[in-house]
Amino acid sequence: MADRVRPGPGTRAERAGRLADAVGTAGLDLLLVTDLTNVRYLTGFGGTNGACLIGPGTATFLTDFRYTDRAAGEVEGWEIGIVSGEWLVGVAERLEGRVGFEDDRLTVREAGKLEAGSAEDVELIEAGGMVEDLRRAKDPSEIEAIAAAAELTDRIYLELIGRELTGRTEEAVARFVVDRMREAGAEPSFPPIVASGPNGASPHAEPGPREIEPGELVTIDMGAELDGYCSDCTRAFATGELDDFAAGIYEVTLAAQLAGLSAVAAGRAAVEVDRAARELIEAAGHGEQFGHGLGHGVGMEVHEGPRIGPRSNDVLAAGDVVTIEPGIYVSGRTGVRIEDLVVVGETGIERNLSSVPKELTLVG
Amino acid sequence: MADRVRPGPGTRAERAGRLADAVGTAGLDLLLVTDLTNVRYLTGFGGTNGACLIGPGTATFLTDFRYTDRAAGEVEGWEIGIVSGEWLVGVAERLEGRVGFEDDRLTVREAGKLEAGSAEDVELIEAGGMVEDLRRAKDPSEIEAIAAAAELTDRIYLELIGRELTGRTEEAVARFVVDRMREAGAEPSFPPIVASGPNGASPHAEPGPREIEPGELVTIDMGAELDGYCSDCTRAFATGELDDFAAGIYEVTLAAQLAGLSAVAAGRAAVEVDRAARELIEAAGHGEQFGHGLGHGVGMEVHEGPRIGPRSNDVLAAGDVVTIEPGIYVSGRTGVRIEDLVVVGETGIERNLSSVPKELTLVG
Repeated sequence: MADRVRPGPGTRAERAGRLADAVGTAGLDLLLVTDLTNVRYLTGFGGTNGACLIGPGTATFLTDFRYTDRAAGEVEGWEIGIVSGEWLVGVAERLEGRVGFEDDRLTVREAGKLEAGSAEDVELIEAGGMVEDLRRAKDPSEIEAIAAAAELTDRIYLELIGRELTGRTEEAVARFVVDRMREAGAEPSFPPIVASGPNGASPHAEPGPREIEPGELVTIDMGAELDGYCSDCTRAFATGELDDFAAGIYEVTLAAQLAGLSAVAAGRAAVEVDRAARELIEAAGHGEQFGHGLGHGVGMEVHEGPRIGPRSNDVLAAGDVVTIEPGIYVSGRTGVRIEDLVVVGETGIERNLSSVPKELTLVG
Repeated sequence: MADRVRPGPGTRAERAGRLADAVGTAGLDLLLVTDLTNVRYLTGFGGTNGACLIGPGTATFLTDFRYTDRAAGEVEGWEIGIVSGEWLVGVAERLEGRVGFEDDRLTVREAGKLEAGSAEDVELIEAGGMVEDLRRAKDPSEIEAIAAAAELTDRIYLELIGRELTGRTEEAVARFVVDRMREAGAEPSFPPIVASGPNGASPHAEPGPREIEPGELVTIDMGAELDGYCSDCTRAFATGELDDFAAGIYEVTLAAQLAGLSAVAAGRAAVEVDRAARELIEAAGHGEQFGHGLGHGVGMEVHEGPRIGPRSNDVLAAGDVVTIEPGIYVSGRTGVRIEDLVVVGETGIERNLSSVPKELTLVG
């Protein structure tokens, strides 16, 4: 499994090359990358302290003495520099010219140390998001890694469907999910949500001591992180025959989810994709009860770009891996959300990574 | 157990009162607290989005609509405000006068949003660390919580001592530790370190597939997080008779650890406490092989103030809970670290929370 998900040095060299080009195009001499997920994406380095300095003609990986051996083993194609003394002071001494930094990651205090420690002619420019933009288009090894995490989630759903939910507590179901992931060598990519009956009315319900009752909706939202990549999937099950209201909002949510999937394609504005799903929910009179965006990107992090929602400025691109997850939440009563994880292709969905059936499924 | 660790509203009100005084003394009208651990310390709120605005005459807790019910249930003694629309814009609109913010937590971009969204006469002042300073002096409920986490760690050490280490891999021992913590309702406060033989030469070794051999040192560093508070403890065991060199560095490290413990008292400069331990290691010719500080504070986070090291400016205070953890790391050969977690009292250690024996212990 690990082999499938580790990109060869060629792939990483391509990432560095594309980033160096983007740095030049942005009018910068260098980009300082300090976010550790971004550093891992670029270099493969998995330690807890490292940074990249990259630009046209420069690709330097910096870490401290603790990681000298590890960097030599993990980081290929980058010049390796070991910073001694205070970390950000040592990093600052290596800056030259117009230097972009990740203003969405560095704290005000850290940026102040960089400023104070760098030469007078160094100009620090807010440039957060450049690596995250690059991370959006997943390469085949990344899509396989996300697919493996999604398959694990799917297997756990099938196990849940094969057992009873009724009479178990939400907490117990959540614990079962987490245990299964860990047995498979994964970790939850976020704490699983198990929201039964009236608790389903909260999109971010924490699993509690409530015992699941017959004849209600149970929304389960879970994802795994496996070999550095995440999955994310939501299904809602019926524990017996539903009343017309609950069955109705399930059908509306499913129709909206399918409409959202149909709208996905490279070049499509995220706001339009959101609209395609949302207008069905609005038409059914539940617009006010769908209080979040339709989806988000998933990769090394379970929430990354693009954002798909009514206020997003993003445009979908081929290779984006995104969730499509409309929901209806009726306070004090019930709720439902249905979520797939899909790869965006040129003319539509290239691949749906979530395979658990979406027709309303009865689980005892 | 939970009862012991939840401070009554009285305790939290005291925290808010002391902080409001400190805000006034610092010449600020308000302090904006955005770090979620700090917010939880002040208010008890455990959700994923919240902030405090506090100053003389003001104690407002802010969150968003998802947490309206939860805030009402968890947060006592604070006025509750629900921010709609974009979070930092809504927060910025509530700022008035000279407002301190946590410059060591807010990113440059977040600070920019606050600046842009606040009224023209609002002055934003870098004021990180005020709540962290308050968090240093633990109250009795906090010390009991840390002690409970430490007791769990101690029980796991005793289980390890009662079994064989030889022939097990480092990874398997680490997994055993994590499983035991989770069975007890805790999580590791950091990934356990199990460093055997030559791997002991790295202070931050990751447990690997190496099988533990007879006649070597095995350093195990672990902590639990239980009910919101952390523990941290290191022991090194011998898997059979050691050669003179390994036995020697163990004895030097233990003597240094005891000297460090003896130097602990309120009012003592952290750098002096570090010196008391370090000079024994230096005298034995291993000064270069003790490449980290002597200790750090532990509480809601496993690393917090004060720092005890050769470049620390901190002074110990009564109620600090700190580690004392000298080590000797001999590249390619072996290493050892011994660590206790102690409560600082007026004239010495008020309580040592680590009870596992420190005489060199033979584990088969």
